[in-house]
Amino acid sequence: MDLATLLGLVGTLGAIASAILMGGGFSIFINGPGLLIVVAGTMTVVLMKYPLSVAVLAIKAAAKAFLHKVQTPRELIEKCVELSTIARKEGVLGLEQVEIENEFLKQGVMLVVDGNDADFVRKMLSNDINLTIERHEEGQSIFKSIGDVAPAMGMIGTLIGLVQMMANMSDPKALGPAMAVALLTTLYGAVIANALALPIADKLALRSKQERMTKTLILEGISAIQAGLNPRVVEDLLKTYLPVTQREFAKDNKEEAA
Amino acid sequence: MDLATLLGLVGTLGAIASAILMGGGFSIFINGPGLLIVVAGTMTVVLMKYPLSVAVLAIKAAAKAFLHKVQTPRELIEKCVELSTIARKEGVLGLEQVEIENEFLKQGVMLVVDGNDADFVRKMLSNDINLTIERHEEGQSIFKSIGDVAPAMGMIGTLIGLVQMMANMSDPKALGPAMAVALLTTLYGAVIANALALPIADKLALRSKQERMTKTLILEGISAIQAGLNPRVVEDLLKTYLPVTQREFAKDNKEEAA
Amino acid sequence: MDLATLLGLVGTLGAIASAILMGGGFSIFINGPGLLIVVAGTMTVVLMKYPLSVAVLAIKAAAKAFLHKVQTPRELIEKCVELSTIARKEGVLGLEQVEIENEFLKQGVMLVVDGNDADFVRKMLSNDINLTIERHEEGQSIFKSIGDVAPAMGMIGTLIGLVQMMANMSDPKALGPAMAVALLTTLYGAVIANALALPIADKLALRSKQERMTKTLILEGISAIQAGLNPRVVEDLLKTYLPVTQREFAKDNKEEAA
Amino acid sequence: MDLATLLGLVGTLGAIASAILMGGGFSIFINGPGLLIVVAGTMTVVLMKYPLSVAVLAIKAAAKAFLHKVQTPRELIEKCVELSTIARKEGVLGLEQVEIENEFLKQGVMLVVDGNDADFVRKMLSNDINLTIERHEEGQSIFKSIGDVAPAMGMIGTLIGLVQMMANMSDPKALGPAMAVALLTTLYGAVIANALALPIADKLALRSKQERMTKTLILEGISAIQAGLNPRVVEDLLKTYLPVTQREFAKDNKEEAA
Amino acid sequence: MDLATLLGLVGTLGAIASAILMGGGFSIFINGPGLLIVVAGTMTVVLMKYPLSVAVLAIKAAAKAFLHKVQTPRELIEKCVELSTIARKEGVLGLEQVEIENEFLKQGVMLVVDGNDADFVRKMLSNDINLTIERHEEGQSIFKSIGDVAPAMGMIGTLIGLVQMMANMSDPKALGPAMAVALLTTLYGAVIANALALPIADKLALRSKQERMTKTLILEGISAIQAGLNPRVVEDLLKTYLPVTQREFAKDNKEEAA
Repeated sequence: MDLATLLGLVGTLGAIASAILMGGGFSIFINGPGLLIVVAGTMTVVLMKYPLSVAVLAIKAAAKAFLHKVQTPRELIEKCVELSTIARKEGVLGLEQVEIENEFLKQGVMLVVDGNDADFVRKMLSNDINLTIERHEEGQSIFKSIGDVAPAMGMIGTLIGLVQMMANMSDPKALGPAMAVALLTTLYGAVIANALALPIADKLALRSKQERMTKTLILEGISAIQAGLNPRVVEDLLKTYLPVTQREFAKDNKEEAA
Repeated sequence: MDLATLLGLVGTLGAIASAILMGGGFSIFINGPGLLIVVAGTMTVVLMKYPLSVAVLAIKAAAKAFLHKVQTPRELIEKCVELSTIARKEGVLGLEQVEIENEFLKQGVMLVVDGNDADFVRKMLSNDINLTIERHEEGQSIFKSIGDVAPAMGMIGTLIGLVQMMANMSDPKALGPAMAVALLTTLYGAVIANALALPIADKLALRSKQERMTKTLILEGISAIQAGLNPRVVEDLLKTYLPVTQREFAKDNKEEAA
Repeated sequence: MDLATLLGLVGTLGAIASAILMGGGFSIFINGPGLLIVVAGTMTVVLMKYPLSVAVLAIKAAAKAFLHKVQTPRELIEKCVELSTIARKEGVLGLEQVEIENEFLKQGVMLVVDGNDADFVRKMLSNDINLTIERHEEGQSIFKSIGDVAPAMGMIGTLIGLVQMMANMSDPKALGPAMAVALLTTLYGAVIANALALPIADKLALRSKQERMTKTLILEGISAIQAGLNPRVVEDLLKTYLPVTQREFAKDNKEEAA
Repeated sequence: MDLATLLGLVGTLGAIASAILMGGGFSIFINGPGLLIVVAGTMTVVLMKYPLSVAVLAIKAAAKAFLHKVQTPRELIEKCVELSTIARKEGVLGLEQVEIENEFLKQGVMLVVDGNDADFVRKMLSNDINLTIERHEEGQSIFKSIGDVAPAMGMIGTLIGLVQMMANMSDPKALGPAMAVALLTTLYGAVIANALALPIADKLALRSKQERMTKTLILEGISAIQAGLNPRVVEDLLKTYLPVTQREFAKDNKEEAA
Repeated sequence: MDLATLLGLVGTLGAIASAILMGGGFSIFINGPGLLIVVAGTMTVVLMKYPLSVAVLAIKAAAKAFLHKVQTPRELIEKCVELSTIARKEGVLGLEQVEIENEFLKQGVMLVVDGNDADFVRKMLSNDINLTIERHEEGQSIFKSIGDVAPAMGMIGTLIGLVQMMANMSDPKALGPAMAVALLTTLYGAVIANALALPIADKLALRSKQERMTKTLILEGISAIQAGLNPRVVEDLLKTYLPVTQREFAKDNKEEAA
């Protein structure tokens, strides 16, 4: 998924750069004071809104969300069915030797193997889900803040440029280039917000939704394993987390097999 | 319903094209870099927000929603009453031979015929309803995103055009046409958002609401059939899903018949 | 209430027309392509959002809401007290001969006279209330859509006009009138949205709220009559639906009488 | 509190007037057609949204909210404690002679003295609270509507002025003053919305919140008195409605006294 | 945390000032009537919205939130575990001698030492939490109001300036500087809103969220101490309030120790 975001980002910046190059050179689009007021100003305003520690934690969580490979629900369901088969044959202690790739599933299985009761396991895992989601939401809200603040700083920069231009309007020929420079900060703000900050905030929101779904699936799976349900029932239960097309495909197989 | 959307789309584009033609030719409204930045830029930003797989699934669901013919509630009620009459006479196994056009109703009847208990049937069908609605909502949110992003990319394009125009303001006569080109991207963004993406998002929302209503009607009908209710009671129950005018019409008939 | 809306509409259009006439003639404010793109374009976009059948039903409901005379809560309370007195004396069958102006009250009394049990009566009437409100909401949402779309089409029209004007800027003297024409579509969109569509949507919302209140009052009244409550208690119960000032006035009378 | 609003209003208008006077005279800021379209137009549009009767009632409620003196929670708590002491000594009938300034408290005490049961008293007073809040909300929504409509009418007025100016652009010297006049309606709309209608709507919302709090305090007090609670307990109970600083102050006194 | 806000504010104003200085001097950015209308006008409009007493209380609460040092959840958990150990050994009366830095924890322990029952302690502390949050929200809403009103007053100031400029357009050379002055109020409004009022409102919201979390942790801790739970269980219970990374670190330690 990170790949899609990266491709999207490169493509967006490419489209903007191509449009610029078709109309002339890049040099007129770079302006020191303008970059200062939009980039530095946005960062300092966001610093006013979030303490440094929160920002660092949230950005770490965001980075992890982008880089961390997600297992598909289908793989997780297969793993849960495998675990429930073992637990049925050898008891939950038999799960101790099984190699589990997914960290959250592993943590849940360990809680079961340690002999904790079902309510405690469910509460610990639920807490973990909620806290993960909360950190993701903090990450989103920081990127949303950048998306709100950058256009505002861009407008402030443009207003400053316009005031300076108009207050010293001695040479009408200098008017055009001065206006061009003034407009640059609005452009910087719009690009930062729409081509960078807001899409990342939206992608984090989607990731957060997917992670909640995946972890809820695991939580249900572990509860079912701990309750000693039939692997077949575990499969039916967890399959409700799959999109219908994939589920129906699985059902067709089953029907063919039947 | 797809017809209304198609007619609306053709009409809208026709109205815009007519307004353009009354004022001159089309050629001044076509601009390569402008189309690049708005169309390609919007697509890449949406790609940043949604992984490709989600986008493909959601667009498929949207296409299906547009093309798939919907049975009217009235037809479905009549079918449910027919099925309940058969179930009363021959038992639920008698439903196996009945030909059922609606996929969801068919799926529900099969669950009943297979002898599943009422709670399980209701849970399976509810899950299906919720998952369908969720996919529809993903489709809506993608079109809403296009409706948000296109005007923003249009503004970015206009700002780029204005900066280029003003930075090289040597020939005042070139000012007008350059300004015209700069404004084109804003126009592209506004047309894509208001005449294409947002109306489709709203239509999908309406479809989604109708599909939830229709499927809930079917769910209620299957529960009633499984419970072995009197066909007359099934009819009265399901008729509450009809708009009042249609229901009152039906009632008048009944009163006349009485 | 329709009268207030009509007066308001005439007054608003009058204020706009007066302001125009004080500054010159009407002729410069009429422009064929502009009207085409705003009026026809808005209608076709709304057609993309709502199927024709929904639009027709909703507009019918809106028209009915404007034209249909509403009985005041006070009149309805008096009628309910009268009915409960009769029901106490002669039993519910005695209600059959009473002439009832309000359609919904009549429908409810008929359900009672027919000997349906209290839960069924309440469910049928509640369904009717919810369906009426839902149709009203569809009507509102169509007028809100018009209020959203008209300014957007106005902006599209203005952008088209500006592009045409600037692309052919040979005669500077033609600039002013061309600009005037370009701005007209924005004006059309703003007038349609703010002086027509949005106020009607708000009035329908208010109507919808009043109708829910009135029908809930009737529902409570019918339940009380069916339960055979003392007319005095029915009056006290229903009076909680009156604004305090009117209720206190009634109470003062009672105290003077006591 | 009305004083703060009045001072705020005078101060705001004073700040605007001073800014105008520092730059010239008032005369250029007055324009008949402009005032007509913004003031009359806003009133007629609001008339389209609200029936006259609702508007009159709501404005009355708003005026009352501004003029009516509010007792502080502290005074009300002291009164309730006094009443509970009397009720303990002499029974609730002893409350009949007590002079009570607050209308709502008086009404509640009368209901208790009349021997109504606790549920009935609570229901009557709750109804009164909800209805008062509802009328306040109608008042707020009218002022919010004015705050929405006035800028829209201002924009319509400016568009009309711009079209007239540009259609007849024979004399370039007349351009400036005509533009000034066109901008005036936008200024009128912005001042009416931001310096008048929206602050009043917000103040009414705050008032409404305070009145709900005060009346809920009284309702709790009357329930406690009717239940014959110890005056000391009544005081502790009602003190939770005071801001912490005031409550802690009271507690310190108690501790010193202890 | 206040440090981050201070640094952010200084940095933001520094970025704006640097951008101004790179383009010329400060003097053209200072304008008496403009400052009057934006600063004084915003203050008077906010005064219309909030009574003086509410504003003073809320600003005090905001200042306290910025200056007051917050204990970390980790420190509070350690203190609660220490207190629960003492309570286990010496009974709750043994808590009387313990020195407690945190005011809220101290207040809660005193309530326990005084022998109040668990429900009463929980209710008193919950009330305190809710009232603190409410005051914080009032503080936020005042800063949000400033953030809404300042840009509106800025726009009003700019409109006044534009009208004055255009009404007296005798000298075209004076046009530029007059326009510069007119734009200044929009700049003032944008800076006040985006670099001052809105970030402070957001920081107060974050503070409010943290304080609710911290105080809820203390409330849980005091309940656990009063219930006489095992210090180990108290620790496990409260640790669910720590971010996962910190909690896992603590768990690793425990595992190593085991």
